[in-house]
Amino acid sequence: MKFSITKRLKGTLGRVGRIETPHGAIETPAFIAVGTKATVKALTPEMVRELGAQATLENTYHLYLQPGDEIVRENGGVAKFMHWDGPTFTDSGGFQVFSLGAAFGKGVSKVATGDVAREEDGRAHKKQKEDHGALAKIDEEGVTFKSHIDGKTHRFTPERSMEIQHNLGADITFAFDECTSPVDPIEYQKEALDRTHRWAKRSLEHHQALGISSATGKQQALYGVVQGGKYRELREESAKTLGAMDFDGYGIGGSFTKEDIGTAVAWVNALLPEDRPRHLLGIGEPIDMFLGCENGVDTFDCVAPTRMGRNGGVYTKDGRLNLFNAKFIRDLGPIEDGCACYTCKNYTRSYVAHLFRSEEMLAGTLASIHNLHFIISLVDKIRELMSEGGYFEFKEAFLSRYYATK
Amino acid sequence: MKFSITKRLKGTLGRVGRIETPHGAIETPAFIAVGTKATVKALTPEMVRELGAQATLENTYHLYLQPGDEIVRENGGVAKFMHWDGPTFTDSGGFQVFSLGAAFGKGVSKVATGDVAREEDGRAHKKQKEDHGALAKIDEEGVTFKSHIDGKTHRFTPERSMEIQHNLGADITFAFDECTSPVDPIEYQKEALDRTHRWAKRSLEHHQALGISSATGKQQALYGVVQGGKYRELREESAKTLGAMDFDGYGIGGSFTKEDIGTAVAWVNALLPEDRPRHLLGIGEPIDMFLGCENGVDTFDCVAPTRMGRNGGVYTKDGRLNLFNAKFIRDLGPIEDGCACYTCKNYTRSYVAHLFRSEEMLAGTLASIHNLHFIISLVDKIRELMSEGGYFEFKEAFLSRYYATK
Repeated sequence: MKFSITKRLKGTLGRVGRIETPHGAIETPAFIAVGTKATVKALTPEMVRELGAQATLENTYHLYLQPGDEIVRENGGVAKFMHWDGPTFTDSGGFQVFSLGAAFGKGVSKVATGDVAREEDGRAHKKQKEDHGALAKIDEEGVTFKSHIDGKTHRFTPERSMEIQHNLGADITFAFDECTSPVDPIEYQKEALDRTHRWAKRSLEHHQALGISSATGKQQALYGVVQGGKYRELREESAKTLGAMDFDGYGIGGSFTKEDIGTAVAWVNALLPEDRPRHLLGIGEPIDMFLGCENGVDTFDCVAPTRMGRNGGVYTKDGRLNLFNAKFIRDLGPIEDGCACYTCKNYTRSYVAHLFRSEEMLAGTLASIHNLHFIISLVDKIRELMSEGGYFEFKEAFLSRYYATK
Repeated sequence: MKFSITKRLKGTLGRVGRIETPHGAIETPAFIAVGTKATVKALTPEMVRELGAQATLENTYHLYLQPGDEIVRENGGVAKFMHWDGPTFTDSGGFQVFSLGAAFGKGVSKVATGDVAREEDGRAHKKQKEDHGALAKIDEEGVTFKSHIDGKTHRFTPERSMEIQHNLGADITFAFDECTSPVDPIEYQKEALDRTHRWAKRSLEHHQALGISSATGKQQALYGVVQGGKYRELREESAKTLGAMDFDGYGIGGSFTKEDIGTAVAWVNALLPEDRPRHLLGIGEPIDMFLGCENGVDTFDCVAPTRMGRNGGVYTKDGRLNLFNAKFIRDLGPIEDGCACYTCKNYTRSYVAHLFRSEEMLAGTLASIHNLHFIISLVDKIRELMSEGGYFEFKEAFLSRYYATK
């Protein structure tokens, strides 16, 4: 993998660059589409490409459980398996092990950091805290957890995560980390962070020992994952510790509240090696795209655009709309006037609202296309203006309009 | 609408032709994709076009209830509403009124004539018979029925069906008919058939009085629907009676058992005016395509390919496969070797099987594409060989292979 910076946003940590992988390049900053189980839900790879995505991110935990990383390897790696002609990322599995795994059967949804899940954060965090360490047992070597599918027991270690990711064969992989809950006390956060740093070192060593991907025969990049919750001293310690290791890039993990994303990202990115790309894990609110980009984030991913889309929620420049609202049934305009996405070019709000009410599968497809196009285009626009000028004027205009109706 | 016959299959009732509609032409014989609620389930119109469909058929009953025919009219008619750039059909609503409507809340599925529903025929027919006339009250004027969505009472008459279909604006529409159950006694079949004939006349008169579609401003074609169950005398009487009326074409409705499709279709088509197209309603088994085509059917429709596809069933030249079968998880071949569909060109059985087990929406999309392509290509091949020679050899080879493993 090669990373080059072509431009910087004056007075900020922001930069414009390019990541080159064995499966193609990513112009950064960029929003990466999430393809959890080797499919961006409800979309074909051609749709994902056409709506503007440059790369996809799949989940190690999910693919390990179903269909199994060996089967993905036999299919030539995750990109070939899912017929995606472009760069891919896989996360480390740590996040899901600690949220889905630990919360199995408790009706607790993923304590995600995207805007959709954020709404449930209070409840989920409380529940998460109660379960933390109950169904996912952590020791120095790794973590034993139960599958959210059938409750069976599995074990991940840093080495195992690397082996699985080598079988999955994504271009960019992540070191195995412990994702803590934001309500965990600082003592526990510190303890978990130290362990995450030891796991990072083991991940890196095992990644180097494994060599090229057994699925693709290509060299994979490995990102270390910075943790530390909302604590400046922990975030900075993490950035310094991992920054001193020979990672190809860095993930920034954990939960943030809306207010501290820019701040926490700035603490970290001020210290991470400048010449390596940074990925902000699982963050997808429009405002976060601005705060992330101007604070030195190069790539983002989040399930929010597709998850929200499948539930009838769509982004517009004037904020979010719910297509189940009765007024849309007779609305002959597109979801958003002037939007260049496939959905807006070809369908009325009336039609998409009908599909949602009729529980037709195409509803989720059309709304997901619009939402992914919206957020990807937004980051594309940010990239363009960070490079050519006009970024701050655009930010001001966009945010005051988008959040005006809230 | 214009219909022309370009070739006949010697020694049979079969013919090759072309239907020209205001929204494009259909080379016949042809299989028409079903887009029940103004969407071919799980597919975009571009996919439907790419897999080879020339036209789609939507359901009057469903669109009347949701979103309502007025809303479809405001959207410019059903083709524009669903972004389908080609000819469309709407059925009369009669079939669903008597099956879905009458069976509301009774756990009875549509007594469909396609191969999937056929398997449940015994049970469904029995139940259907018990309910027949209970929740759908038939009188000389029309039928009062309950919505399968909310149980509310609605009323269809031949005039109402025409008004709804004029609002929907399809190129080809059907006269309102009573679809009887195959287990109804002949006395009832006769009574229902006479009423269907009176309704056909009223449909035709009202269609002519309404003029062009209020949705599209285009002239719509109206097909009369031949009924009569399994009884030769009734089928022939129906063909003669309706054949003498000024319909643009004819639908052949009702249920058939696998054995009598060719025979019953032949009774009817020997008597129907030769210069008008015939549509066999709701029939979709591969063998039925041969029996229909060589007995003078010009177009077919059926939900079987997409419904079966969404449930993991796929057609191959060697018969049907169930993708939930454990052996497919590691199968790196396509669903069918040599198949030219999008799914087979780009995905392994292993991947599609993974999607089904993971309950991913793309599973239904990929299997529906393959199945619709399979059945549409089959009818395309029949058309080609009926025209250029080699039909009977192909039929023999196809059927002996397809049904060999059964």
